[in-house]
Amino acid sequence: MSKSIVLTGITTTGTPHLGNYAGAIRPAIQASKNANVRPFYFLADYHALIKCQEPARVKQSSLEIAASWLALGLDTANAVFYRQSDVPEILELTWMLTCVTAKGLMNRAHAYKAAVAENEETEGHDPDTGITMGLFSYPILMAADILLFNAQQVPVGKDQIQHIEMARDIASRFNHIYGEHFVLPEAVLADNAATLLGLDGRKMSKSYNNTIPIFEEEKKLRKLINKIKTNSLEPGVPKETENCTLFGIYQAFAHPHEIEEIRNRYAEGIAWGEMKQILFEKINAEIAPARDRYEALLASPGHIEQELKDGAEKARAITVPFIKTLREAVGISPIFS
Amino acid sequence: MSKSIVLTGITTTGTPHLGNYAGAIRPAIQASKNANVRPFYFLADYHALIKCQEPARVKQSSLEIAASWLALGLDTANAVFYRQSDVPEILELTWMLTCVTAKGLMNRAHAYKAAVAENEETEGHDPDTGITMGLFSYPILMAADILLFNAQQVPVGKDQIQHIEMARDIASRFNHIYGEHFVLPEAVLADNAATLLGLDGRKMSKSYNNTIPIFEEEKKLRKLINKIKTNSLEPGVPKETENCTLFGIYQAFAHPHEIEEIRNRYAEGIAWGEMKQILFEKINAEIAPARDRYEALLASPGHIEQELKDGAEKARAITVPFIKTLREAVGISPIFS
Repeated sequence: MSKSIVLTGITTTGTPHLGNYAGAIRPAIQASKNANVRPFYFLADYHALIKCQEPARVKQSSLEIAASWLALGLDTANAVFYRQSDVPEILELTWMLTCVTAKGLMNRAHAYKAAVAENEETEGHDPDTGITMGLFSYPILMAADILLFNAQQVPVGKDQIQHIEMARDIASRFNHIYGEHFVLPEAVLADNAATLLGLDGRKMSKSYNNTIPIFEEEKKLRKLINKIKTNSLEPGVPKETENCTLFGIYQAFAHPHEIEEIRNRYAEGIAWGEMKQILFEKINAEIAPARDRYEALLASPGHIEQELKDGAEKARAITVPFIKTLREAVGISPIFS
Repeated sequence: MSKSIVLTGITTTGTPHLGNYAGAIRPAIQASKNANVRPFYFLADYHALIKCQEPARVKQSSLEIAASWLALGLDTANAVFYRQSDVPEILELTWMLTCVTAKGLMNRAHAYKAAVAENEETEGHDPDTGITMGLFSYPILMAADILLFNAQQVPVGKDQIQHIEMARDIASRFNHIYGEHFVLPEAVLADNAATLLGLDGRKMSKSYNNTIPIFEEEKKLRKLINKIKTNSLEPGVPKETENCTLFGIYQAFAHPHEIEEIRNRYAEGIAWGEMKQILFEKINAEIAPARDRYEALLASPGHIEQELKDGAEKARAITVPFIKTLREAVGISPIFS
C-alpha cells in the first residue's frame, strides 16, 4: 500500500494529437506500468464544460481520448482510469472546499488575471466581460480532483504549478478548520516532456488549429506531415536543427543514435522532402499497431464504456468512504445511522 | 400532475425560534396541506457550510429543524421534505450552472457587495478580505436548488428577491445554450408573513442573540417572555401597540377579535406583567401539543432520519432522471449505453 499516487486529468474538448502523445500520454502510459506507482487518470469532462459549450464535441472527445489511451497500452489493471462525471463525490468535495476558499486566492489565478488583462485593453469592457464563474473557480474543482484521492504527485506543465499551490492552500485551510484530512500535493514538473511544434511552427495546440491527430489514417498522416512549414533552403544547403519543427517531432520518436544520424544529415543539407518521408516512416512505425487497436475500440464503444465504468468503481471504492468521513467532519452527516 | 411546485430551503445553522415559526414554518406547513401545491422543503446543509464552520452546530441544527417541522405537523405525504446533501444532483447541476454563469452577475449580489463595502470602510483591508468563494458563489447553488425541481414559486423575503432574479438569469442562459430545460422561477413575496421582534426589541434573529426558541420548555418560555424589553410606563397609563414587541408577537398567535380586545386593554393601560402573562398563555396553548411531539421525536432520531431518507428518495425520483437529461444536453453522458 505504499504505492505513490500520481494523478492526471485530460480535458475532453478535442482530438488527441502528437503533441499530447509525446508530452503527456506516452509518459503517463509508461508510468502506468510502474508497479511502485498508482496512477489516477481521468477524463476531465466537468472541466470541459468551462471551455466548450458544444455537447457533441465534448462527447466525441471523451470517446476519442478514452480510445486513444486504451489503444496506446494504458495498463488499467494498475492505473485507475475513469470519467470525472462518474465520481459525484468530486463535486461534493468541490462545494466543501468552495466554502473554505478565500475569494482573494481566486482573484490571483493566472488564467483569470490574463482574461481580465485582455478586457482592460479593450475600451468600454468591464474587467469581467465574458468571464464565467467556471473560469473563475475551476482551481477549486482541480483541488477537489487531487485532494479526493490524496494524490501526492501531480505531473504538470509550468503553467499549472500555481494550481497545485492553490490546492495546497485550500487543503491547509480545510485541515486547519476541520482536522487533518488531506495530504498536501506536490507539483512534479514534467521537465523532460517533449513540446512539439505544429504545422505552422507554433506550439502544437488545438487552439492554433495546427495539430496532427495521433490516429490520422496513414495517407492523411503523410499528407499532414508534408504540410509542415519549413524554410526554403534547397537540398544540399546545410540546415539548422534548432527550432526545426520536423527535427523536433523526429526527436520525440527516435532513439538517440538515430537522432545523431539525422543531425548529421541536416549538416550535410538533407532535402525537406526526404526529411518529411523519414519523419512519416518513424511516426507511422510507432503508431500503426495502436491505430488498429484504436479503430477496433471505436467500433466497440461498449468496451470503452465498460473500462471507464470499471475505473469509476475503483475510484469510488476510495471516494465514497472518504467523502463520508469528510461529511462527518463538516457536520452534514446523517442525524442517525 | 398540475400541482404548483413551491420550494423553500432552511439553512441548518441554528435552533428554530418563534420568528421562524410565525414567518416561515407555520405558513409552509399550512401550504403543505394544500392539495393543489407540491411543496419541496429542504434542510439546506450545503448552505450552512458557508456561514458556519462548527460541525456540531450544523448537525444539531439539522436535527432540531427536522424535528420542529415534523412536530408542527408537516404533511410529508404531500410535501417532499429532504436534506440537501442527500441529493447529490444538486451539486452536479451547480457545476453545470457555474459554467454558464457570468462572473459579473455574482459581482452584483447584494450580500457580496455588502461584505465588500464593509471591507472598504476598514483601512488597509483588501475589498475581498474574509470573503469566501462560498459567500461569493452561493446564488448559483441556490439556482440549482430551485431549477433542479423546476419550482415555479419560491416564497422569499425582500432580501432574497435578487437571488430569484439571478436564478432566472442563469436558467435563461443555460436554456439559450443547451435548449429549453428550465422553467423560470418566480419570487413570491411573503408579504403578510409576520416579522417578530426579539427580546431586545430588534428583529428576532439568531445573529442578534435575542430569540425565543419554539420548543423552549414551559418554565423557560415564561422566563424568556418575562425578559422581553418594554418601556417603563406604569399600569393604568395608556400604551402604544405599534412597535410593541409583546403586541407584535401576540398578533402572530391570536385571532382578530382577540387582537382587538388586547388593543383596547393597551388603550386602558394594561400592566406589562399582565400582558406578558397573557402572551405566554397564548403561545404556550399553540405550541404545547407540538412540544410533546418534538420531545418524542428528539428521543427517536432514527424516525427523523427515516423521514428525511424517504423525502430524499422522492426528490431523487425527480432529480436522477432530470440530471441524466441535462448531462446528455451538455455532452457528458456515457459514450455507450
